[in-house]
Amino acid sequence: MTGAAVEPELRARIEDFLAAAAFAVDDDEVERWPLFFTEDGFYQIIPRDGYEAGHPLGIMTCAGRGMMRDRIAALRDANIYEPHGYCHVLARPLLERTAEGEIAARTNFALYRTIQGRATELFAAGKYVDRIVEDGELRLKSRHVVLESRRVDILIVLPI
Amino acid sequence: MTGAAVEPELRARIEDFLAAAAFAVDDDEVERWPLFFTEDGFYQIIPRDGYEAGHPLGIMTCAGRGMMRDRIAALRDANIYEPHGYCHVLARPLLERTAEGEIAARTNFALYRTIQGRATELFAAGKYVDRIVEDGELRLKSRHVVLESRRVDILIVLPI
Amino acid sequence: MTGAAVEPELRARIEDFLAAAAFAVDDDEVERWPLFFTEDGFYQIIPRDGYEAGHPLGIMTCAGRGMMRDRIAALRDANIYEPHGYCHVLARPLLERTAEGEIAARTNFALYRTIQGRATELFAAGKYVDRIVEDGELRLKSRHVVLESRRVDILIVLPI
Repeated sequence: MTGAAVEPELRARIEDFLAAAAFAVDDDEVERWPLFFTEDGFYQIIPRDGYEAGHPLGIMTCAGRGMMRDRIAALRDANIYEPHGYCHVLARPLLERTAEGEIAARTNFALYRTIQGRATELFAAGKYVDRIVEDGELRLKSRHVVLESRRVDILIVLPI
Repeated sequence: MTGAAVEPELRARIEDFLAAAAFAVDDDEVERWPLFFTEDGFYQIIPRDGYEAGHPLGIMTCAGRGMMRDRIAALRDANIYEPHGYCHVLARPLLERTAEGEIAARTNFALYRTIQGRATELFAAGKYVDRIVEDGELRLKSRHVVLESRRVDILIVLPI
Repeated sequence: MTGAAVEPELRARIEDFLAAAAFAVDDDEVERWPLFFTEDGFYQIIPRDGYEAGHPLGIMTCAGRGMMRDRIAALRDANIYEPHGYCHVLARPLLERTAEGEIAARTNFALYRTIQGRATELFAAGKYVDRIVEDGELRLKSRHVVLESRRVDILIVLPI
């Protein structure tokens, strides 16, 4: 990235924001998760090779909060999956202000999954490639969750 | 959490403090570890399900530096366990000042264990839920180590 | 460490620098990696037990950018290894200014490797022990990559 630097106060707010978005999922408060996006925010989980090749199709895509809410409602209602919890460990994000006044963020992460009654295991590693805007509050305009491996559980139920 | 924000200078000190407490264990200087607590500081390792249910009993509990020192002396003297080392990777803490003027901190972490002669493995993932006070220096008034899984080695010898 | 503190602005620059060095490898732009070192910079991967015993020999050593470039050219040309990618998750560094005006940095990390077509796995955990200088830009004068385990693939091709 080659954009302009981000001032320290804004960086601190963005880092808290990125952590809070992860905590919403980790803490089983996934209903709050769509609020970290703009109303028409874009969310996609995509393997690294597909992302780098510019493929438009990911493993999972939500265009807008409505789709995010539908997905969450489905997983709460259906409740057919094995209960499990997530724990995110995020590294320091690389932040830059774009020409359009948005923030481009890249954040490496490791995600640990614990299925009820089992040991904790590495579920995925990768990076968030985010566009963040401010409409009073910080929001994700888009988030690409770029996974190092395409070998993840086909049944990804919680947002990564 | 809904407390007041923590100013940048204090945040930096707290982040250094949390890292230093982890390094004391990682660097096999565990005798220094009780000093990160107040004299009557509380330390408990507890699985997430028990923590969320409000259970008072954890996997391991130390009430006060004396119990912490006893535990460390025992593990140094007994020396019956397989030699192993820890490596902590802590994410950015969520920090808030409470109404009592303490700092409430929540820090996700991954802990890697390496038993002598073996490969490094994920030992635990979870979060520190801390109350931090200042008596000249920063100290942990309480630390709950909330583990994602209850399936951890029954023989946890080093503090997590 | 017992050196002088590092001011917030410099800390932020160093943290970005350390992240950028990891991203150069993660993003398959390893040709840029030697530029994070001084011309005569030192790089060594060494297991923790050897490092603590003061052994001069590591698993891999590069003295100067020339050796680093040779190594990278070899791995690009030979291309005999299984394609794989790295993903680094770095924790907050401990930073101190030394008497010589350099920065001593210690950074815990976890490194995830993904071999093409396989699942992501923990490849190594450990710490960077760095000396950082400034010649207009920040540079690594030396980096010891201290691995928790000596059981790593003998065929380490990418810098850790």
